[in-house]
Amino acid sequence: MENLRVVLVATRNPLNLGAVARAMSNFGAMYLRVVDPYEKAFREARSAVGASEVMRRAEEFSNVEEAVADCGLVVGTTAIGNREIKHPMRSLDRAGPALRKRLAKEPVALLFGSEKWGLSNENLSYCHWLVHIPTREEHQSMNLGQAAAVCLWELARGKRSFEEGGARPGALMETVERITDAMLQCLLRSGYVAARSEALAGEKLRRMLRRFSLDATDGEVLLGMMKKVEEKLRKE
Amino acid sequence: MENLRVVLVATRNPLNLGAVARAMSNFGAMYLRVVDPYEKAFREARSAVGASEVMRRAEEFSNVEEAVADCGLVVGTTAIGNREIKHPMRSLDRAGPALRKRLAKEPVALLFGSEKWGLSNENLSYCHWLVHIPTREEHQSMNLGQAAAVCLWELARGKRSFEEGGARPGALMETVERITDAMLQCLLRSGYVAARSEALAGEKLRRMLRRFSLDATDGEVLLGMMKKVEEKLRKE
Repeated sequence: MENLRVVLVATRNPLNLGAVARAMSNFGAMYLRVVDPYEKAFREARSAVGASEVMRRAEEFSNVEEAVADCGLVVGTTAIGNREIKHPMRSLDRAGPALRKRLAKEPVALLFGSEKWGLSNENLSYCHWLVHIPTREEHQSMNLGQAAAVCLWELARGKRSFEEGGARPGALMETVERITDAMLQCLLRSGYVAARSEALAGEKLRRMLRRFSLDATDGEVLLGMMKKVEEKLRKE
Repeated sequence: MENLRVVLVATRNPLNLGAVARAMSNFGAMYLRVVDPYEKAFREARSAVGASEVMRRAEEFSNVEEAVADCGLVVGTTAIGNREIKHPMRSLDRAGPALRKRLAKEPVALLFGSEKWGLSNENLSYCHWLVHIPTREEHQSMNLGQAAAVCLWELARGKRSFEEGGARPGALMETVERITDAMLQCLLRSGYVAARSEALAGEKLRRMLRRFSLDATDGEVLLGMMKKVEEKLRKE
């Protein structure tokens, strides 16, 4: 993400500016460039309480040409269908790998147009190709901050530097077997299972408990529960 | 996406409600459920100019239990690191395929907590597992509307058809809740759980049963077992 330049062209709403900057910060894209912003909106977003570092460091340019001058690849975003498409276009899921590959090598600019009009044909003339986020036919146009978040996620995804929680060790089969025994006793004593069908019921129960994929902790807890209930039933 | 239920718990900001609804509409997820919203925020979002059909049709629930009752899988979203994690957790890119597979078969609930606090431990106790969007260490917390957009994109992307692999539909949350109740009664009557710690024990039990990922048949069987055992204990 070090090589990504997010370029916002003619953005009107300071909330949208702030939202794009926030998503960039979330996903580690630190270089925001704004072209021809409403001065007021830009100032507001920059000075907003809780403005991200990304927003505060945003650079301003008077046109797209200057904003992308140091980039080796320029990609525009567009809601499909809002104009005759003269550019090669890729859907975001196909564009992801291509963009990541280039980002590994050189500065890449990703352009977003104004909330109302998107990128103009003049803006588009600076783009090598276009990317669009496939959306529902009846409601294609996305909110700017959300579209940016989705694009950034797609560029950032895959680099898993995160610990995966939850992969706890499984319960020992010995424990599962003891749970099966204790539960079966409960079921016999409560009358759920008749004595003559004990063997078959035990087998079904064993199979069911295997399907639960108990982890070690849950196994011990469940065993404790079932033994206590069994004990109580036995006291009668 | 037909099977997706997006559940917003205790959302405070009408703009966020509207933003989530908009992203849902973009990606074809039409069923929004809100739990315990600020009434004012909810009314505002619903009546906002340009409120999407999704927002206008949003259903309101007074608690998570009711909001997920008809779902076979409940997945919570969380910013990692905001509390001790007691649930299995997957990053969004890994969760995507698993979620899409289940969505092909049955209603799935995706929960988002309040802007400030996320999902409470009580909310989490209704979740089978959690998903988080990997973000930068220094700035983990995402805007609600953007987080929802990213999750929805991940669910909608590719739309590749997956092999079913003989997986069975999950037990309804309503059934799992009834199992929880019956087991808790057994544990109270057997003395495993003391009356004063009933609430906490119930929450732990609920969480454990979610981890078992019961399928529909096992759910019915286990419920029958527990009710029979409970009945027997009650007769003493």
